[in-house]
Amino acid sequence: MNKTSDTFPEYRPLDEDSVIDFVGEIQPVREALGSNPETWRMREVGDGNLNLVFIVTGEKGAVVIKQAVPYLRCVGEAWALPLERAFFENEALSEAAKFVPHLLPKLYHYDAKQAAIVMEFLSPHIILRKGFIQGIRYPRLAGDIAEFMAQTLFKTSDLYLDAATKKARMAIFCGNTELCKITEDLVFTDPYRIAKLNRWTTPQLDDIALQYREDAPLKIAVQRLKLKFLTSAEALIHGDLHSGSIMATPENTRVIDPEFAFYGPMGFDIGAVIGNLLLAFFSQEGHESSPGRRNEYRAWLFQTIEETWNRFQQRFLELWQENGTGDAYHASLFTDPVSLEALATERRTYLRRLFHDSVGFAGVKMIRRIFGLAHVEDLEAIKDPDLRARCERKALRLGRLLVLESESFSNIAEVTAAARQEYSHHES
Amino acid sequence: MNKTSDTFPEYRPLDEDSVIDFVGEIQPVREALGSNPETWRMREVGDGNLNLVFIVTGEKGAVVIKQAVPYLRCVGEAWALPLERAFFENEALSEAAKFVPHLLPKLYHYDAKQAAIVMEFLSPHIILRKGFIQGIRYPRLAGDIAEFMAQTLFKTSDLYLDAATKKARMAIFCGNTELCKITEDLVFTDPYRIAKLNRWTTPQLDDIALQYREDAPLKIAVQRLKLKFLTSAEALIHGDLHSGSIMATPENTRVIDPEFAFYGPMGFDIGAVIGNLLLAFFSQEGHESSPGRRNEYRAWLFQTIEETWNRFQQRFLELWQENGTGDAYHASLFTDPVSLEALATERRTYLRRLFHDSVGFAGVKMIRRIFGLAHVEDLEAIKDPDLRARCERKALRLGRLLVLESESFSNIAEVTAAARQEYSHHES
Repeated sequence: MNKTSDTFPEYRPLDEDSVIDFVGEIQPVREALGSNPETWRMREVGDGNLNLVFIVTGEKGAVVIKQAVPYLRCVGEAWALPLERAFFENEALSEAAKFVPHLLPKLYHYDAKQAAIVMEFLSPHIILRKGFIQGIRYPRLAGDIAEFMAQTLFKTSDLYLDAATKKARMAIFCGNTELCKITEDLVFTDPYRIAKLNRWTTPQLDDIALQYREDAPLKIAVQRLKLKFLTSAEALIHGDLHSGSIMATPENTRVIDPEFAFYGPMGFDIGAVIGNLLLAFFSQEGHESSPGRRNEYRAWLFQTIEETWNRFQQRFLELWQENGTGDAYHASLFTDPVSLEALATERRTYLRRLFHDSVGFAGVKMIRRIFGLAHVEDLEAIKDPDLRARCERKALRLGRLLVLESESFSNIAEVTAAARQEYSHHES
Repeated sequence: MNKTSDTFPEYRPLDEDSVIDFVGEIQPVREALGSNPETWRMREVGDGNLNLVFIVTGEKGAVVIKQAVPYLRCVGEAWALPLERAFFENEALSEAAKFVPHLLPKLYHYDAKQAAIVMEFLSPHIILRKGFIQGIRYPRLAGDIAEFMAQTLFKTSDLYLDAATKKARMAIFCGNTELCKITEDLVFTDPYRIAKLNRWTTPQLDDIALQYREDAPLKIAVQRLKLKFLTSAEALIHGDLHSGSIMATPENTRVIDPEFAFYGPMGFDIGAVIGNLLLAFFSQEGHESSPGRRNEYRAWLFQTIEETWNRFQQRFLELWQENGTGDAYHASLFTDPVSLEALATERRTYLRRLFHDSVGFAGVKMIRRIFGLAHVEDLEAIKDPDLRARCERKALRLGRLLVLESESFSNIAEVTAAARQEYSHHES
């Protein structure tokens, strides 16, 4: 997979000279920009870790070109990464577009040879994470993300699909192992051992970093979640659904960047959303102009966390009730009133199990952002290392609790209550 | 997949005229039989549902030719079945041969165009199920099957393999959907609904067949197991590991027929073994010359069930301890004494969960053999329908208990105790 020159003989990284020529040949792009390429302008904006990103603007509009590069950008060329991830991203975007096209950027073109995707330029959307830092409220966020997750997770699962259709999709995504391995290592393994790529706010967090590396119950619980990540082929998950993979305005929400997609546990996506909202919460202390100034925003974040889960649960149950066409819990077995009632109870049991998975995954996602390679801007943007470490320590403590005690939470309000309690906790 | 003429243009069902020519060209077969094809003799012996089976005998020895036919033999040409299953059988046999070659027939040749596998003729082995009917004891059986399952399940799992290697294998077996669908329908669905292919000892079992079709808690529990079958990609499982897929002498054990193989839950294989041993137990009443005559054989069957699980557990734990090289529970996290002790505890927890899975799958495997399409000779050979129904009813009752209460069993002796109790139960 890593031999770029073998499998992508025509691949050339795009640059300012070539990008306009590249998109100029794509008819839907000409329609979107206005068919006068000499007036188009480009800029490179890639701020992610994995890709080149260009924006090309014309008279009528703008498009984004996202091109994979054959190494992990933030680490350097030593960390090879397969260009095939553009293929998986396009596959996952196309799959999600069947169900929730309004929650994705419009797709104009996928170029297999250049490992590039051309899509709608979202404006005036910003990366959700940046909005959280600024204290912007997104009244549509909870409902939109709940809808995105309910639709994409339910409709790629055995609750909706026949087994053969599901396994054909699954086989394709079995090939996305190198991106899955990044998650396996960076989320589930490295933060709990000495690893070259780890970093944290030092020396402030040295004590707790060491504690977690020696915390046997925590490591066992995290590995149990990793086993689930490796074996539970429940649905085609986004695989990286944090607040950097969502672009939003207060009126509109779009999910981007599903290159980590594969058939995995649904709770991993849900946990990513919840965990990153909790990180946004804990970072507010570093962004408010005076203590308590962001209290209402904190309340909004909590409300968003609660609504995201509660609406997700409701939508997922509705979809299952109305479209339970899959091979699992086959509808032909549940036709009489007693059986239907038993199935309704089982659906709630299923959602309770999924909730516990999600809480656990939320916890690991929080911890990895503080000890691991890839940090989040919510916390990184806090300049004062003592203040940042104080926020981080609280997030770490909640993360550990969510991982170890996931099954003790009976609803999402208990999760936000635990976050509130950790936030109010005075360090001894 | 079903268009045989498209994907297998050269495919011709073998017959007595062509089979010797076919194997005569295979050098390892000439070595096994003696290179004088005019002295070879053949007979057709296929007694399974899915294949043509020939034995060719020469001066030096004999080989078996197993050729897939493009329909389900026992139902007729209307039920199309893909020839690709020979490919999956060969893949699974080859994989298992890496770990336990001594517990498999020797493989001489796989012919992709003719969907045929040529392998060692096992002699004087008989199908284990037939041995159980005759009351033959197999002192090596428990240990050999425990070894087979421990090796094949552990060494294809995330406990032993890195994720990329496992997923590459998994992707291949994602294609074996049509045989998986047979299991999904015949094991997990049809016995619990009116279905054309169902049959049972009638009218004797009409009441309990109706009861089970209306038994909401049972149907929910079975569907939960089906969901596990559809989503838990734990290991490359045999997929059909009943006593008709094992050939044995008292001194030697071989596993055959893994065409249902795919990445699924380990407990499905273990449950198949336990469930079919329990069916052998309940059928003894129909095979003993006078009541109680087979009591010692019953005790041997129970001992075999208990030893199979206990030795499996022991071997699996040993393999994990000595070869825990996989991405799950990554060894680098467990190096200090406290962490190692926690991992040892977690391994036992893992095995307890696997035991509960296995008990549940054993139960569904028992029920499907009495209400579904494919019955077992253990029971079918009982000529008196009242006697047969009496045996079957007890097996059905235990099956239901195993499915519904799988988690209440804390060890395998409690399972055999429940079987003994059901056996002694006087029908009201």
